[in-house]
Amino acid sequence: MRFLHTADWHIGKKLHGYNLLEDQLHAFNQIIQLAKKEAVDGIIIAGDLYDRSVPSVDAVEVFNQMIIELNLEEKLPVFAISGNHDSSIRLETGGPWFKQSDFYLHTRLEQAFQPIEVGDTQLFLLPYFEPIAARLYFENDEIRTIEKAMEFVTAEIKKNFKSGMAHVLVSHFFAAGSAKSDSETKLTVGGLDTVPLDLLRDFDYVALGHLHNKDALISDQIRYSGSPLKFSLSERKQEKGVWIVDISEQSCQLEFHRIQPLREIKELQGTFQELAKQEFYESIDRKDFMFIQLTDRSVIPNMMYQLRKVYPNILGVERVYGRENDQKGLTKDVNMKQLSPLELSRQFFEEMTEEELTSQQEQWLNESLDSVQQKERGK
Amino acid sequence: MRFLHTADWHIGKKLHGYNLLEDQLHAFNQIIQLAKKEAVDGIIIAGDLYDRSVPSVDAVEVFNQMIIELNLEEKLPVFAISGNHDSSIRLETGGPWFKQSDFYLHTRLEQAFQPIEVGDTQLFLLPYFEPIAARLYFENDEIRTIEKAMEFVTAEIKKNFKSGMAHVLVSHFFAAGSAKSDSETKLTVGGLDTVPLDLLRDFDYVALGHLHNKDALISDQIRYSGSPLKFSLSERKQEKGVWIVDISEQSCQLEFHRIQPLREIKELQGTFQELAKQEFYESIDRKDFMFIQLTDRSVIPNMMYQLRKVYPNILGVERVYGRENDQKGLTKDVNMKQLSPLELSRQFFEEMTEEELTSQQEQWLNESLDSVQQKERGK
Repeated sequence: MRFLHTADWHIGKKLHGYNLLEDQLHAFNQIIQLAKKEAVDGIIIAGDLYDRSVPSVDAVEVFNQMIIELNLEEKLPVFAISGNHDSSIRLETGGPWFKQSDFYLHTRLEQAFQPIEVGDTQLFLLPYFEPIAARLYFENDEIRTIEKAMEFVTAEIKKNFKSGMAHVLVSHFFAAGSAKSDSETKLTVGGLDTVPLDLLRDFDYVALGHLHNKDALISDQIRYSGSPLKFSLSERKQEKGVWIVDISEQSCQLEFHRIQPLREIKELQGTFQELAKQEFYESIDRKDFMFIQLTDRSVIPNMMYQLRKVYPNILGVERVYGRENDQKGLTKDVNMKQLSPLELSRQFFEEMTEEELTSQQEQWLNESLDSVQQKERGK
Repeated sequence: MRFLHTADWHIGKKLHGYNLLEDQLHAFNQIIQLAKKEAVDGIIIAGDLYDRSVPSVDAVEVFNQMIIELNLEEKLPVFAISGNHDSSIRLETGGPWFKQSDFYLHTRLEQAFQPIEVGDTQLFLLPYFEPIAARLYFENDEIRTIEKAMEFVTAEIKKNFKSGMAHVLVSHFFAAGSAKSDSETKLTVGGLDTVPLDLLRDFDYVALGHLHNKDALISDQIRYSGSPLKFSLSERKQEKGVWIVDISEQSCQLEFHRIQPLREIKELQGTFQELAKQEFYESIDRKDFMFIQLTDRSVIPNMMYQLRKVYPNILGVERVYGRENDQKGLTKDVNMKQLSPLELSRQFFEEMTEEELTSQQEQWLNESLDSVQQKERGK
């Protein structure tokens, strides 16, 4: 069997407030083209189809379109599971009908034990689940962690192994030894959420979702695909794309294919003057997401406002060498006791962000200060 | 063609805070039994499948189960549309797959113009829509009301009429001359939302949803099915059920079939003492929803608390003859100016409801009074 392995689409996700639906459609179009060009037997999506349990109407519309195109128009078999970001019950709507056209969407633990056979390959689609689901399914009170649960789950799955076939597990968890980045939601604390690799050794390939970095785990046959897009600043150096996997009982061959983003995350380093210079900014693609690293140390009035006029998609501004204490502008110059809490907060905000409070922000600040003062009075 | 006509399921709706999911499943089971017994060719559901655009996970789970049973297990064709309570985009998830098993779920205006043919009948499934959808579809700026929109929509539908066949319209709106009750959401004001019956005369049957009273409109071939359950106190005298319709080009025969509720809405009239008497309350089915009409006029301490101990599902208590001014208990006895606003409000609440404030209610009251006082101070 030859398949495409992707995961963590997070449809509807925003990056620092920027809507990514167009970027997600742009990546999707490359995935579908690649699947056709590589003549795969199907597409594996290893969880986190949506970014939230109740996705926005826009996100639902975009995802519905994608799946219609993938499965009904291009007739590509789809093997998908729900991830920790999805609501399994909401996502399962339509599931029993999808099968008619080889779109398998597993959202419940017990569905993992019904393998789907494609040629000489058995696919086991194990959705994200909580230990309690396994505790109830196996009627065993000792199952309190994902590690323990996976002992039972993999044993149960192996009962359905047919010999002479390749065995593929599709799942969504944190595999031992992987490296996390910022944009993955932590499942639990204290390592209870970690699945040891030894439990996964009997599969010919494990198609994982959850971590957004394809290199989070380096193992021949246990792989994260990573997300098709960069979903946080901390992912800016990661290579994004999908795996094309050729699997048989004897061998497993992997090839990574990059996805070109609609808008890249770029780092811009320089002085404010350099970055605001027309010759410079006209030489680069300004629709990209910019992470700006200013080398100046002086206070720059209205800095964000001016930068945003030039760079519409700024993710953040960092002062590489910190900021100098420009005595004139700073609050310590005046007697702080003479300032009202509102005025003091306003000045602090402006010094830290180099932006003025919007009227909405000023209102929030006012309300918060009022509420603190009342509590003080109430004592 | 022989079909069952129902509408306004409002899965997830609550009645005065009481969860109705079990009542809705109970009604659904009768609908499915009736459909089988009457050997219908399909089930029409004329909108408002859910009660809210974002239904709860429980509601989604129950509705998914129902539709699986109806269409996949019992193999009944389903002809459904979205209503004003549904989110058309959320509801359309899975739609293109549903057709494979004769489950037609129309959520967009333009889908009304693709008739579904069953034997000698053409079904036109017209979902609830806003005038702007018709204005854009017909590219005509004069379409500002549902009445105007329906002129265009019915003309467009009629272009697809095949002669020699019966023509059925499934839709969800307020038809001229209908009588509204409390639990239907008003669409617009000033009659702009009303569809004249003349526009509907060319259909052999119009299966409507939106109004919960099957008798809201008395017309041979234009009918509301009403909701399968009573969804408000004002619906307590309505007969609830579904239509079984036999339709051909020559004739249209209707038969109404009642649905037995799991919990009926009952009116109980008497004195507090009578209603609290064991011989009385043990003679009736106390799981029903009770609307209690007290004939006493005196103040009864802890009345609601005592009544709820006997009747778990109280929708409301009415004092048929009002209440006497029991001078001892009432606020006018004391000098109101001596009471704090909080104390005054607390006494007023207790006199009106015959219940004490809960600690949560007292907290809300306190916060509201605080906020009023601050605004006063701010002037």
